[in-house]
Amino acid sequence: MRFSELTIGQSAAFTKTVTEADIVLFAGITGDHNPLHVNEPWAAQTRFGGRIAHGMLTAGFVSTVIGMHLPGPGAIYLQQSLRFLLPVRIGDTVTARGEVIELVPDRRRARIVTTVHNQRGEMVLDGEALVMVMESARG
Amino acid sequence: MRFSELTIGQSAAFTKTVTEADIVLFAGITGDHNPLHVNEPWAAQTRFGGRIAHGMLTAGFVSTVIGMHLPGPGAIYLQQSLRFLLPVRIGDTVTARGEVIELVPDRRRARIVTTVHNQRGEMVLDGEALVMVMESARG
Amino acid sequence: MRFSELTIGQSAAFTKTVTEADIVLFAGITGDHNPLHVNEPWAAQTRFGGRIAHGMLTAGFVSTVIGMHLPGPGAIYLQQSLRFLLPVRIGDTVTARGEVIELVPDRRRARIVTTVHNQRGEMVLDGEALVMVMESARG
Amino acid sequence: MRFSELTIGQSAAFTKTVTEADIVLFAGITGDHNPLHVNEPWAAQTRFGGRIAHGMLTAGFVSTVIGMHLPGPGAIYLQQSLRFLLPVRIGDTVTARGEVIELVPDRRRARIVTTVHNQRGEMVLDGEALVMVMESARG
Repeated sequence: MRFSELTIGQSAAFTKTVTEADIVLFAGITGDHNPLHVNEPWAAQTRFGGRIAHGMLTAGFVSTVIGMHLPGPGAIYLQQSLRFLLPVRIGDTVTARGEVIELVPDRRRARIVTTVHNQRGEMVLDGEALVMVMESARG
Repeated sequence: MRFSELTIGQSAAFTKTVTEADIVLFAGITGDHNPLHVNEPWAAQTRFGGRIAHGMLTAGFVSTVIGMHLPGPGAIYLQQSLRFLLPVRIGDTVTARGEVIELVPDRRRARIVTTVHNQRGEMVLDGEALVMVMESARG
Repeated sequence: MRFSELTIGQSAAFTKTVTEADIVLFAGITGDHNPLHVNEPWAAQTRFGGRIAHGMLTAGFVSTVIGMHLPGPGAIYLQQSLRFLLPVRIGDTVTARGEVIELVPDRRRARIVTTVHNQRGEMVLDGEALVMVMESARG
Repeated sequence: MRFSELTIGQSAAFTKTVTEADIVLFAGITGDHNPLHVNEPWAAQTRFGGRIAHGMLTAGFVSTVIGMHLPGPGAIYLQQSLRFLLPVRIGDTVTARGEVIELVPDRRRARIVTTVHNQRGEMVLDGEALVMVMESARG
C-alpha cells in the first residue's frame, strides 16, 4: 500500500489458531526454550497451568498485519511497543489488529494501534507500531 | 533466576547466525510473507538490496535472553519496546543483550535494557523490557 | 566451559516435553519415516500402542546437555553409546542428564554418564559420552 | 523386513545433502544451540573453520537406515554406539550405511555395523547398532 492510500481509522487483521508446532518452531529459531513454553509439567505448576506461547510469537502476528496489510509491502518497521496482558495457550485462536491513528505525510510515517485478542474477546497484547512507507512500494 | 539473585548491571547475551531457514520458518508460523522477507528479486530492488529478516524475528532473540538467562525460567514478560535501527540480512550474526537497569523488589519487577548488535558491532535493535519474576521460579 | 572448570560428579540437565511437531520435524530432516513414528494406526497395533519418538531424537537431548552445558561451547563430541530402554511417547516430558565420571587432563577429555528419564522417573535411555574440550573454548 | 529375511552381509544406505536448514531445525527441536552449530563467526575461529552439523544429526541418518531399510518397519532399536570421526559441514553429502554382521534368531536380534561417509569418501562416523525385529512386523 502506498502512503497516499492510508487513512486515519483504516484497519486490518490476521487470525490464527496457535498450535504446539508454532511454539516448537518459534523456540527452535529463536533459541528460547524457557520451560514455560517447552516443559508441560513445569508449566503446569505455575500460575499459567500449562505451556503458553512466547509473547514474541504473539507479537509476530502483529508483524503480519503490518507487513502484509497495513501498510503491507513497502512498509519499513521503525518501532513497536508491546504489553503482554494475558497468556496465549496452545489451541487459542488469536486475532491481531492494526488501526491507523496518525499520519505524518512529509515523512511518510504512520502510527498504528496494535492489539491481539483471543477467541473469547479478551485482549492478550496491545501496543503501538510506527512505520514508514517506501516511496516506490511495489507488490 | 530468583528475583533476589538479580542485581543492577547484571547482563546476559545470546548469539546466532540468522539463516534463510530462520526467515522461512518465521514467515511460516507468523504468516508474515512480506516480499521483503520472502521475495528476493522484489527485495533486491528496494533500499535493502535483498531479503532481510523480520524485525520481530530479531526481537525474538531478545526474548531468548529474557526467557533463558535474565531472569530466565520464572520470568513473566510484561512489556517490551522495540526500535528497529538497521536491517538484519541472511548470514548476519546477531548478539542480543540484556542489562538490568532497575529493580522494584516489592513487585518483583526488573527493567532491562535490550539491544541487538550485528557482527560489525552495529546496533540493529534497541528497546527495553519489563519483567516480573514468579515467586516460586524453578529450574 | 574450560576443561579446568570440569570436576568429577559435575552434572547438568535439559528438560523438554516431546511433541508431535518434534517427531514430524525429526522425521523430515533425517528421512526416518518409519511408521512407528509417523503412522498412527500402524503404530497403534504394535506393542507400543501408538507412535513413539525416534530413539535418536531422545539421544538429541543428550547432545543438548553436552553441547550447551557439560562442557558446552568448546566441546568436541568424540563418542556416544546409547541404550534405548523404554519408548518416549508424544506428550512425555523427558529430562536428559549428564554427569562427569572421568577426566583425562593431558588429553583434555571427559567421560560423562548420560541418561534420559521420563516424567514418571523411568529411565528411557542411558549411555556414555566421551568429549574433548578445545583449548581456546569461548562463549 | 521380517527377521527371517535378514542375512549376514545384507546392507542398505541412505544419502542426503546436509543443509543449513537441517541444522537450524535440529538445533530447534533438541535445544542444542551450541555456537559451533549456530554462530558462524565463533565457529570460524575454531579448528573447524565454520559451523558444522550436530554429531547426533549425522547419527540420525543411521537411524534412517535402521528404521527405513535394515530391518525397517518392525525394528526395535536397542542400542547404538557412535564415534564421531570428522566434522560434517553445510553442503556436505553424507551416506549412512548399515551392514548385518550377526543374527541371533532365538531372540530375533541383529547386529549391524553402521557408518557414515561424506562425498569425498571419508568416514565421518562409525558405530554399531543392535536391533530386535517385532514378530508381526508390517509395512
